[in-house]
Amino acid sequence: MSEANHSTELAPGALTDVPGLEVGHATNLITWTGCTVVLAREGAIAGGVVRGLAPGTRETDLLRPATLVEKAHGILLTGGSAFGLAAADGVMRYLEEHGIGYDAGGVRVPIVPGAVLFDLGIGDSAVRPDATMGYAACQAANSKDQSQGNVGAGTGATVGKLMGIGKAMKGGLGQASVRAGHLIVAALMAVNAFGDVIDPASGQIIAGARNLAGDGFLDTAQAMRHMIVRNVMAFKNTVIGVVATNAQLDVAQTNELAWAAHDGLARAVRPSHSLYDGDAIFGLSTGKVRAHQALVSDMAAEATTLAILNAVRAAEKASGLPSARSWQPGR
Amino acid sequence: MSEANHSTELAPGALTDVPGLEVGHATNLITWTGCTVVLAREGAIAGGVVRGLAPGTRETDLLRPATLVEKAHGILLTGGSAFGLAAADGVMRYLEEHGIGYDAGGVRVPIVPGAVLFDLGIGDSAVRPDATMGYAACQAANSKDQSQGNVGAGTGATVGKLMGIGKAMKGGLGQASVRAGHLIVAALMAVNAFGDVIDPASGQIIAGARNLAGDGFLDTAQAMRHMIVRNVMAFKNTVIGVVATNAQLDVAQTNELAWAAHDGLARAVRPSHSLYDGDAIFGLSTGKVRAHQALVSDMAAEATTLAILNAVRAAEKASGLPSARSWQPGR
Repeated sequence: MSEANHSTELAPGALTDVPGLEVGHATNLITWTGCTVVLAREGAIAGGVVRGLAPGTRETDLLRPATLVEKAHGILLTGGSAFGLAAADGVMRYLEEHGIGYDAGGVRVPIVPGAVLFDLGIGDSAVRPDATMGYAACQAANSKDQSQGNVGAGTGATVGKLMGIGKAMKGGLGQASVRAGHLIVAALMAVNAFGDVIDPASGQIIAGARNLAGDGFLDTAQAMRHMIVRNVMAFKNTVIGVVATNAQLDVAQTNELAWAAHDGLARAVRPSHSLYDGDAIFGLSTGKVRAHQALVSDMAAEATTLAILNAVRAAEKASGLPSARSWQPGR
Repeated sequence: MSEANHSTELAPGALTDVPGLEVGHATNLITWTGCTVVLAREGAIAGGVVRGLAPGTRETDLLRPATLVEKAHGILLTGGSAFGLAAADGVMRYLEEHGIGYDAGGVRVPIVPGAVLFDLGIGDSAVRPDATMGYAACQAANSKDQSQGNVGAGTGATVGKLMGIGKAMKGGLGQASVRAGHLIVAALMAVNAFGDVIDPASGQIIAGARNLAGDGFLDTAQAMRHMIVRNVMAFKNTVIGVVATNAQLDVAQTNELAWAAHDGLARAVRPSHSLYDGDAIFGLSTGKVRAHQALVSDMAAEATTLAILNAVRAAEKASGLPSARSWQPGR
């Protein structure tokens, strides 16, 4: 691979640029795990698309068009692999205590879809996000959040794992938003990809697998042409996130919004959507702005790409792994 | 509706007739809720199909063909609406303590898909299955289980809710198995349907909505032709279950097994798969018996129908609601 892009300039914006959303994180920098919660106290029209082939999810079936429930009240993105789904219990408890949920006649049932990433390969694998951590993320949630890097669901995230965790780099959490007139589309991504993160503006790898000499990038996609990929990767990788807009969308259109976000993921991660990734993106609509589908989708892809780049550019080195910010590949 | 079928004879068999499976229940007869766990300690090839339009689920995305994970180690069926998903945390804990899970290199991650039913309309809606209850169901699991009626996930189940819970009847948990030579297909169903339960052998309603006079069945499907269905039903209904076989199936075929089971559901419940039902069925394969797809699918449908009929025939009256066993409609 040729020279790397050392820019640490971050694209602007955050998920909370979309009115009606709050974002909160719980972060454990000792055991390297955490979770991120997106709250929509009034509910947001919700969709979701799982494109990775090693997913860990909950409440995704109700996101399909034509189902009864149209709004979600929270989205959970969490470390801890499937164990981390326990954090959703804390999110549900918080929302119930605040009287928020689908009205089932006397009982309000909070709708909290969620997805996990595998961060048990760094830090202490016995500590995973639980209900207490999910609840804490809700308590921390606010409408001004701009957090990025080693925070929330991105705390233990890593990228570029073809040669194992030892040659990986630090991933993280990223956010970005894109505007066109009154229309806002924003993305929040926790980046824990099997592949490398590439800036599509330059074609250069920003963070990913390092070569065996440790002086440059391996270039995962190229390396795979010349090797038999070992089956040891298991399901240790995933990009999970939320793309949201103030455009007025129905459930089918929020699913399309999530599909479009996966296009943005494909541009920024290579290989993307692999057998070893659980890539899952949720779509949320909170507003009344009228906009063309093609415009909203392109902005969703763009915001997602920018959020993924921000995630690895904002990440700090951790647990023995360098980050884009800390590591300069040789030429 | 004409006369009802007062047979209380139960079809034989149980899910544990399929080698490799254990079944356990946690039952709270004071607050009328509970959960049922199916354990496959060696793992079982797993699929799942969600046909209802008001589902509450977890870990269903990984059941698709072509995904990395092919085996599940436990299936959770639970009351408590979406809150009940917390019981899966206890199932994961139990399995992890026993060293059971997908080997992610140093960490074993138990794969526990699950689905919920809404039983908050009877008993105490503030008490729902939690991690402790999920763990207890695992501790109770055994390979001889034959439990039916007001037990586990069927504890708070009801059927026939077009006119509201006041005219409903008690549902429950049912099991049945069907054999052909060495081939076994078995089903376990928690029956909490919006519609009526009908014996397809006679066309007669076995349990369902009672008419306003309280002396006979309403016949939900007929009644819907003459009324505007009120939107108050919310997502208070669901048939959730497991269909399992000792046939050697791949992941795509276990999904087909679950599809076939939904045909069996359609024959026994009317209306079925409604906007107000979260109908979800998991398919499991544990064995090496070779069998024709058409035979396995037909046996899956049959076992599912029989398990649903057993569920309402084994249910006892509870919380002010009659059951098929306790109530004699007038003629």
